[in-house]
Amino acid sequence: MAELVNERIAYHNGAYLPESRVLLPFRDRGFLYGDAVFDTTRTFRHLVFRLAEHVDRLYRSLRYVRIDPGLSPREMCAATEEVLARNLHLLDPTDDYWVSQRISRGTATVDRELNSQDGATVVIECTPLPLQERATLYRDGIRVVVPARRRTPPEALSPQAKTSNYLNMIVADQEVAAIDPGAWAVLLDMAGNLAEGRGSNLFLGRDGCLLTPPAGQLLPGISRQTVIEIAGELGIPCRETNLQLFDAYAADEAFLTSTSLCICPVRSINGARIGGEDPFGPLTRRLIRRYSERVDCDFVDQYRQYLR
Amino acid sequence: MAELVNERIAYHNGAYLPESRVLLPFRDRGFLYGDAVFDTTRTFRHLVFRLAEHVDRLYRSLRYVRIDPGLSPREMCAATEEVLARNLHLLDPTDDYWVSQRISRGTATVDRELNSQDGATVVIECTPLPLQERATLYRDGIRVVVPARRRTPPEALSPQAKTSNYLNMIVADQEVAAIDPGAWAVLLDMAGNLAEGRGSNLFLGRDGCLLTPPAGQLLPGISRQTVIEIAGELGIPCRETNLQLFDAYAADEAFLTSTSLCICPVRSINGARIGGEDPFGPLTRRLIRRYSERVDCDFVDQYRQYLR
Amino acid sequence: MAELVNERIAYHNGAYLPESRVLLPFRDRGFLYGDAVFDTTRTFRHLVFRLAEHVDRLYRSLRYVRIDPGLSPREMCAATEEVLARNLHLLDPTDDYWVSQRISRGTATVDRELNSQDGATVVIECTPLPLQERATLYRDGIRVVVPARRRTPPEALSPQAKTSNYLNMIVADQEVAAIDPGAWAVLLDMAGNLAEGRGSNLFLGRDGCLLTPPAGQLLPGISRQTVIEIAGELGIPCRETNLQLFDAYAADEAFLTSTSLCICPVRSINGARIGGEDPFGPLTRRLIRRYSERVDCDFVDQYRQYLR
Amino acid sequence: MAELVNERIAYHNGAYLPESRVLLPFRDRGFLYGDAVFDTTRTFRHLVFRLAEHVDRLYRSLRYVRIDPGLSPREMCAATEEVLARNLHLLDPTDDYWVSQRISRGTATVDRELNSQDGATVVIECTPLPLQERATLYRDGIRVVVPARRRTPPEALSPQAKTSNYLNMIVADQEVAAIDPGAWAVLLDMAGNLAEGRGSNLFLGRDGCLLTPPAGQLLPGISRQTVIEIAGELGIPCRETNLQLFDAYAADEAFLTSTSLCICPVRSINGARIGGEDPFGPLTRRLIRRYSERVDCDFVDQYRQYLR
Amino acid sequence: MAELVNERIAYHNGAYLPESRVLLPFRDRGFLYGDAVFDTTRTFRHLVFRLAEHVDRLYRSLRYVRIDPGLSPREMCAATEEVLARNLHLLDPTDDYWVSQRISRGTATVDRELNSQDGATVVIECTPLPLQERATLYRDGIRVVVPARRRTPPEALSPQAKTSNYLNMIVADQEVAAIDPGAWAVLLDMAGNLAEGRGSNLFLGRDGCLLTPPAGQLLPGISRQTVIEIAGELGIPCRETNLQLFDAYAADEAFLTSTSLCICPVRSINGARIGGEDPFGPLTRRLIRRYSERVDCDFVDQYRQYLR
Amino acid sequence: MAELVNERIAYHNGAYLPESRVLLPFRDRGFLYGDAVFDTTRTFRHLVFRLAEHVDRLYRSLRYVRIDPGLSPREMCAATEEVLARNLHLLDPTDDYWVSQRISRGTATVDRELNSQDGATVVIECTPLPLQERATLYRDGIRVVVPARRRTPPEALSPQAKTSNYLNMIVADQEVAAIDPGAWAVLLDMAGNLAEGRGSNLFLGRDGCLLTPPAGQLLPGISRQTVIEIAGELGIPCRETNLQLFDAYAADEAFLTSTSLCICPVRSINGARIGGEDPFGPLTRRLIRRYSERVDCDFVDQYRQYLR
Repeated sequence: MAELVNERIAYHNGAYLPESRVLLPFRDRGFLYGDAVFDTTRTFRHLVFRLAEHVDRLYRSLRYVRIDPGLSPREMCAATEEVLARNLHLLDPTDDYWVSQRISRGTATVDRELNSQDGATVVIECTPLPLQERATLYRDGIRVVVPARRRTPPEALSPQAKTSNYLNMIVADQEVAAIDPGAWAVLLDMAGNLAEGRGSNLFLGRDGCLLTPPAGQLLPGISRQTVIEIAGELGIPCRETNLQLFDAYAADEAFLTSTSLCICPVRSINGARIGGEDPFGPLTRRLIRRYSERVDCDFVDQYRQYLR
Repeated sequence: MAELVNERIAYHNGAYLPESRVLLPFRDRGFLYGDAVFDTTRTFRHLVFRLAEHVDRLYRSLRYVRIDPGLSPREMCAATEEVLARNLHLLDPTDDYWVSQRISRGTATVDRELNSQDGATVVIECTPLPLQERATLYRDGIRVVVPARRRTPPEALSPQAKTSNYLNMIVADQEVAAIDPGAWAVLLDMAGNLAEGRGSNLFLGRDGCLLTPPAGQLLPGISRQTVIEIAGELGIPCRETNLQLFDAYAADEAFLTSTSLCICPVRSINGARIGGEDPFGPLTRRLIRRYSERVDCDFVDQYRQYLR
Repeated sequence: MAELVNERIAYHNGAYLPESRVLLPFRDRGFLYGDAVFDTTRTFRHLVFRLAEHVDRLYRSLRYVRIDPGLSPREMCAATEEVLARNLHLLDPTDDYWVSQRISRGTATVDRELNSQDGATVVIECTPLPLQERATLYRDGIRVVVPARRRTPPEALSPQAKTSNYLNMIVADQEVAAIDPGAWAVLLDMAGNLAEGRGSNLFLGRDGCLLTPPAGQLLPGISRQTVIEIAGELGIPCRETNLQLFDAYAADEAFLTSTSLCICPVRSINGARIGGEDPFGPLTRRLIRRYSERVDCDFVDQYRQYLR
Repeated sequence: MAELVNERIAYHNGAYLPESRVLLPFRDRGFLYGDAVFDTTRTFRHLVFRLAEHVDRLYRSLRYVRIDPGLSPREMCAATEEVLARNLHLLDPTDDYWVSQRISRGTATVDRELNSQDGATVVIECTPLPLQERATLYRDGIRVVVPARRRTPPEALSPQAKTSNYLNMIVADQEVAAIDPGAWAVLLDMAGNLAEGRGSNLFLGRDGCLLTPPAGQLLPGISRQTVIEIAGELGIPCRETNLQLFDAYAADEAFLTSTSLCICPVRSINGARIGGEDPFGPLTRRLIRRYSERVDCDFVDQYRQYLR
Repeated sequence: MAELVNERIAYHNGAYLPESRVLLPFRDRGFLYGDAVFDTTRTFRHLVFRLAEHVDRLYRSLRYVRIDPGLSPREMCAATEEVLARNLHLLDPTDDYWVSQRISRGTATVDRELNSQDGATVVIECTPLPLQERATLYRDGIRVVVPARRRTPPEALSPQAKTSNYLNMIVADQEVAAIDPGAWAVLLDMAGNLAEGRGSNLFLGRDGCLLTPPAGQLLPGISRQTVIEIAGELGIPCRETNLQLFDAYAADEAFLTSTSLCICPVRSINGARIGGEDPFGPLTRRLIRRYSERVDCDFVDQYRQYLR
Repeated sequence: MAELVNERIAYHNGAYLPESRVLLPFRDRGFLYGDAVFDTTRTFRHLVFRLAEHVDRLYRSLRYVRIDPGLSPREMCAATEEVLARNLHLLDPTDDYWVSQRISRGTATVDRELNSQDGATVVIECTPLPLQERATLYRDGIRVVVPARRRTPPEALSPQAKTSNYLNMIVADQEVAAIDPGAWAVLLDMAGNLAEGRGSNLFLGRDGCLLTPPAGQLLPGISRQTVIEIAGELGIPCRETNLQLFDAYAADEAFLTSTSLCICPVRSINGARIGGEDPFGPLTRRLIRRYSERVDCDFVDQYRQYLR
């Protein structure tokens, strides 16, 4: 069909459709209540990264909110691969995709009757990574600001479930951007420990060691896990431990990890410079090099191509 | 058009359309992130209830999440009235509508670039009240269960903003329904005080006085406000004060308020019967009578018609 | 004496008496204020289990509430063995006993004069295990419900001391049983982490690892310690770490441990099924087998005999 | 009977017996678990004080822990009056009694089977007030020490229920007495606000106003209520509000209230003298005078008679 | 003496000296540990404002940290007036002074021996108000930013005592200024409620009412008290109640009060504009007018003279 | 110069002066606000202990409060050595010095303009250790009392920064000393875990293991670090873990560490004796012996010389 030439394809409840034809009734509970979960991986050189682990995490999120997606994990993986395959031809050789599964509880009939759905809404889709928009971050480092807003506590809604209830993070980002445009928010948990940013995890380097907040009050990302594994390979001690603003200010270097960022250096926290002039500290550099080897993609260069 | 005969009309970004034609791109941020707010009032005998106050509250929610709806409050009211007018002919004389405005931040382009939207998504729609589904509640009273899950704290996302991030409440309701089907959840706040249910507020009666949790950790509903006003008219002392499980167990009577419920008696809390055999305590009865007069609708009878 | 034929013997302040003759003045501070501590072990095939450790723990509890029992730990052990010896003849070969020491501060004279006691009240007694009452748990698994009630925090009264102030747990069990008869309560601590049930500890199994809440906000049971030791022997990784509802819902299997239960599988938490149809997960089965070997008693079979 | 000459009589499950014959099986759940509640009033000049209110409070405590006493409130009052009547002849004209109802859940059969009791244990008894032991407090004032231990939070067990789980308070008193013999503990709640002592409430006087912590984290005593009423009669402004150590240190005067103390001045808090040399501040004196009139008993003189 | 011509005079332990001769040994505990308290009032048209109340507050701070200043409140007031009198001739007619008493515990000898001081250090001094530096605030309004840092809780050190331990506030101001130069920090308390800025209190106006956080987690300023009194005179309802970020965002207008600011409008909170273009809301204007009358000084004009 | 004969020399902003000539303007921000940090090491047999580590910690504190000392760490060390060298001749052979660097932000000009300083105030000085005052502690052990006051939380001001805001600790010590003269305060953190005393860390010994609170809510001292290293050398297991009052009461032995104390045994906590008659438990003895070897100084004997 004509759309395939210039339009991406997405999966929607069993069908592969041009994105503009993936339309949802406004009574979809995802739209009404954010009553949905999702997960996102990315490609490196057009190959998808650790898909099984992302889908595994997706199913834990589903179990937490008690949504039955109507597909097995294996089927979810296959459909994801299929979506990707149908869209790769649209991608520049040096670009890559985010690939996401989004599952809502389906269409509401009457408000409180939770069980009257006739099944979940499943969308699988891909989007080009925002390489250009973020290119300068890989030159200057990220300015992190820790806002007053605290990460939603597990008693209310577990940060370990990747749900579509993102306002906690979105409002935090807005509050930060309104006073320091371009800065990224990293939130404290309710006990005052450093938790996470929107979809990102924080690492600090100090005296040759890596430090990162433990799971529980945050979503332990797969990129975070990758860094921990790589640190082990490189013999860099890495501890998961409660960290506070003091630790951030006292750090020699810092970086954020996320599916799309992989590893991106932090230049300052609350306006306090971390490390020296070069935001890429020595541990950061070693980890980036090994990460790039593992994914067979120089992601720093990939971002920076847009600086040229 | 043919649809108008048997299909409700909704407002969508300036147009009045049959509901089945109000379709949203899956990249609408309401669907992706619950990045949206809403408000809901109801009709009594086909007349809308305190619309201006609901819209006023809607705009405070919008301000909190920094969404510009692109309509003035006056325009929002007018469109709401118009939606209602176009749908009243579908309603039985003894039934009534919920009427809701739902505003998302619009369509996402690339994840983090919050400012690149070309405008909010606005949907205004109405739904028949679930009178039949709830009819027994007005005979037997609601069984309330207080789950372990706590209401999202204001540090994370204010309960005073009526946002589309409802998973905290939805999961709480599921946890309760899984062990006591038909029971409703009322959550504690992080400090252990009784807060609110999904869209509902709690009142206790003891020694001739009304007690209800104060605003701050909950959304102070307009029906709650109506009860406070009515109590004043009836000379029933009413205090907004921190309440705990002890107070609930020690109460002589209890009820929930919400836009659709108005006042619905509570039969038990965590399996402990409140009051005697009749869930309608003396204060509850007086308040229901006056509330019915004020809205010119015997809402208890309206619900109970479906028992017959 | 005649009673010995059909009545159990208990120790009371130096004497071994038929239970019906162990009577306490109503001014005993144990009765007035729960001003007492206790500890309980059980027999396996009529042999007492890890008595020294239980008595050691008892003396730490005594030290915490500053009660002097008037007996040395060695004397306490000897009296316990003696009580057991005098009662074994009453026990069916396939049954076993709980064996408990209970020490109150003694008799109150005037309320606030704490020091005017003339010595502690010491009772040592045994009770047949409730094998029949619990037999179905070893077939179906325990339904766990996490109530709103939180475990008493150490700032108020340490859960590490096994005191006779059990209302926190008793009321929690009642609240759970009132909405789901037969379910067992497992409480969160004040920070929202999974703590413990009444006399029981929780283990989760996930991805081949055991997880259990750390000591501090709970009483680390001796059966819990036994499981940790056994896991080490079997090469099953076991981590003591903060766990939340998310972790429980995401678990592959779960079980409770206690002196009497040893290891009993959990079937569901808040109505969410843990694992598949069989509540006995693979780690649970391996641990039960080794535990049974260690205590030389197939305790699952012992409970299940009453199903036949 | 001979005992009646020199022994007090108590009520026990329907019978009036000499105290030495009120004996409880050691399996009474009050002794095993503190699974009991109680309430205490006192006499003034041999007349019982506000008995109906104390019994009302007792029944709220019973409802909280879900114990059915098997007696109506009216029967409970009558039995209390009867116990008192049978013991007044033992009392010196200038002395008075504490009068208490103590209700446990009854005798345990097997641990977890809460429902297998055949009824509560009810004891009603009286004890002479410790007038002599406390006489110096009415000359020198009470030395209050605020320990590190915090009052049990309502999420764990409501301080508004007067239960027999008193170890929180008892251990606090011990910790205080071990470093300052004779001092009384007043505990903070979990949020750091002044809560209550063992059976006593705190009032501060500052700039001519009375301040006392609000109900919720503490048991609002009937003597406390009496003081609030009296303050209203005397035109002394009285606010129930969160108070902290700062407020105590900044106070002009302070006193404790309890059933037996009525009003007893506080001399110091954590070693910091409150007010001047005379621990009886001006508000304290006015309130004592009016309280004495109301109960028709100069209770300060009653205590002080033992100084002579 | 020559210095008097162009140098301010300060009081130091009994002497009135040119400021440059008020020198402290480095072992003064104020310098070593911030072991000191202070209080500050200002003049209006060269007359000191509510000095007795400020000194009263100073003595409560002294009592809290248990420092004996060696002067009576009356002597403190007299010395303050004397310092002011000796410095007025240095002041422009349109300018005014801050006037402060600063009392440290005196000189340390050996670290832990707190009692070995030979007396407090008392300094009384005045400083011209920073009228020029702040002039634009009275044109544009203050940009308030709420940082992640929380106000020191009363359990640690009461904000009601005005001590020389100001790093909590200073570091908060630095964190804010580093990302938004010129913005002022207003901190949340540990429970997430709006507390106070460095020496300033926050008021919100909404629907014609004033709202301000209650005392307890903040120092209730004397200017704050003045505004409350004035609001009463003007018939503007004013409630002291817990406020959160939501309330700030939903406000129609906002202002800060402090000794030097009196009333200064707030333009934005976390980048979100409060009110419309004019930062002076209608309540703010009315209160400023009345405040100016009360102090007989148009303080807005006094600040704004430096804009000309 | 004459002073050198009998007066110590200190460093002050570049100069080495007799202490009596190191005088600070009262507008030094250290005096006004405690706006300063410091660090302290000691000598052993006149040799300074781990100076580089102390200066490293000092610079982390400086970074936290954003003070630039104007000296490099190397220069700071050199000046410290120089101060020491100039004062050693005043010291008895068996005595030793505390050596401290104290850096304030410098002199305030106008209150809020933080950036208008012309540089920090740097003082480096030494003081003889209070060997005589503390001699009995090494015979009898320290009586520790845990007050109600909690350690300042990191959200307010990190205990990991050694700042001159010491009132939290000073007031705690006063509260303890007022009821138990000579006792030392050890504070709980906000979550109720044992934190630290004024400049001291707590260790418990139990069942042959060492336990000490983890960093984060406390300043992990260099003496604490030394003990951890020594324990490793001696094969004594040592865990950094959350500890509560229960753990303290259940300990077999306990000691405090600090720069000056090195290791000093604890005799009791809240009046509860730790260990037996001899406050020096077996682990304490072994660690003291090894510590003495490492610093080449029998510090216990050094303190005890003053008992003779």
